[in-house]
Amino acid sequence: MSELNLPDFPESLMTDSPKSGFALAIKLARLGVKATQPDMAVLKKLRPKYANDPDSLTSASHVIAAHFQTVAAANNWWREEERGDEQ
Amino acid sequence: MSELNLPDFPESLMTDSPKSGFALAIKLARLGVKATQPDMAVLKKLRPKYANDPDSLTSASHVIAAHFQTVAAANNWWREEERGDEQ
Amino acid sequence: MSELNLPDFPESLMTDSPKSGFALAIKLARLGVKATQPDMAVLKKLRPKYANDPDSLTSASHVIAAHFQTVAAANNWWREEERGDEQ
Amino acid sequence: MSELNLPDFPESLMTDSPKSGFALAIKLARLGVKATQPDMAVLKKLRPKYANDPDSLTSASHVIAAHFQTVAAANNWWREEERGDEQ
Amino acid sequence: MSELNLPDFPESLMTDSPKSGFALAIKLARLGVKATQPDMAVLKKLRPKYANDPDSLTSASHVIAAHFQTVAAANNWWREEERGDEQ
Amino acid sequence: MSELNLPDFPESLMTDSPKSGFALAIKLARLGVKATQPDMAVLKKLRPKYANDPDSLTSASHVIAAHFQTVAAANNWWREEERGDEQ
Repeated sequence: MSELNLPDFPESLMTDSPKSGFALAIKLARLGVKATQPDMAVLKKLRPKYANDPDSLTSASHVIAAHFQTVAAANNWWREEERGDEQ
Repeated sequence: MSELNLPDFPESLMTDSPKSGFALAIKLARLGVKATQPDMAVLKKLRPKYANDPDSLTSASHVIAAHFQTVAAANNWWREEERGDEQ
Repeated sequence: MSELNLPDFPESLMTDSPKSGFALAIKLARLGVKATQPDMAVLKKLRPKYANDPDSLTSASHVIAAHFQTVAAANNWWREEERGDEQ
Repeated sequence: MSELNLPDFPESLMTDSPKSGFALAIKLARLGVKATQPDMAVLKKLRPKYANDPDSLTSASHVIAAHFQTVAAANNWWREEERGDEQ
Repeated sequence: MSELNLPDFPESLMTDSPKSGFALAIKLARLGVKATQPDMAVLKKLRPKYANDPDSLTSASHVIAAHFQTVAAANNWWREEERGDEQ
Repeated sequence: MSELNLPDFPESLMTDSPKSGFALAIKLARLGVKATQPDMAVLKKLRPKYANDPDSLTSASHVIAAHFQTVAAANNWWREEERGDEQ
């Protein structure tokens, strides 16, 4: 399969904390947008529209949630047995 | 990966009850919105619009549901064997 | 984490039947709405709009479906071995 | 939890075939709609609108897909070892 | 449960390849539409609208994705151990 | 089941990295669109509309996220034990 241009794509879905996993989910959501519209100048131009529309923001949050499901499962939900030092 | 500014992000997805897990899901849904629009003043200005639009409210509830799936799985659904004292 | 005001939140996701689980999913979907708009008077005022819009009803049903996935998994899908007396 | 009026709710998510499971998913999607709008006369009046709008139909199909995920998992996807006589 | 008219519904979710599984997911998405609008003449009439609207196409693709999750899980993702001869 | 015309469909969901898996998810999202609108000339004509609409881009990213859930699960999330050489 000829691959798309996906620079900076993470080598692994493993992260050391839920917070880093959430940041990865955000990154994946944005990479999904760039896959369809790779022109950063266009994306920048569109930003004022969606960043000020509550429904657009909720939709963006939904995509992050979908990726966070994947990343959290990949990391076995950062369960306590593997961390043990928190909460 | 350069991380976003995600202050107050929980250290763990573990919670002591479904209720706390639901509160965490709500928090994650909001952090997903803030990831795209970090300006709290803008978010406050948008609130009257989405908080009075039933479809916006349903969409927000959907994002919470997606995160609650993740948090509930992380906590093994707070199953009875680990609690035993309710229902 | 400072918790939201979530009165009447169930102590457990365990239910004795798929029907009770579905009722719980409906409740969770509504709690997700109330998390964003806690003012019951506003919610009551919005009701005629979404309750008569087929797309709003379908969206509400979608959120219930997402929560039912969670509740059903929590209950191991109320599989026969644990019930044995039906179907 | 005071339960909603959900007559005819199935006693079990177990079905004898994918086809029956799909029919159950359709039923659950409709029960999700009725949970928000229980008035059958209203639902009947709304039908011409959504039944002739392709996006409404796709959304309805999406809710069915979500419930089918649940029902299929409940039935262990009707895997061959439990049926053995097909395909 | 009185079943809907679902002719040609597959006897099994098992398929011999990801490709056949994807075709099955497409079929399930369409059956979900037909469950709400069984009149093929109406569906044919609606086609020009959604087949030329990019958002309608994306929504249709989303439903297929949801069903493909189900079908792929049913087939244990057609993992290599069960095939061994590809990639 | 008579299959759709799905040329270039991958033989396997297995990929050697998250990046290749994400590329596969993008491909599956597009194949879902082509299943409904196979005419490439039409798809090309529609591109300016959705590629410049932030909500369309977010929706496309959501479909990719759904497929990435499937592909990541298929690959056991490319967990470290199977790779060991990264992060």
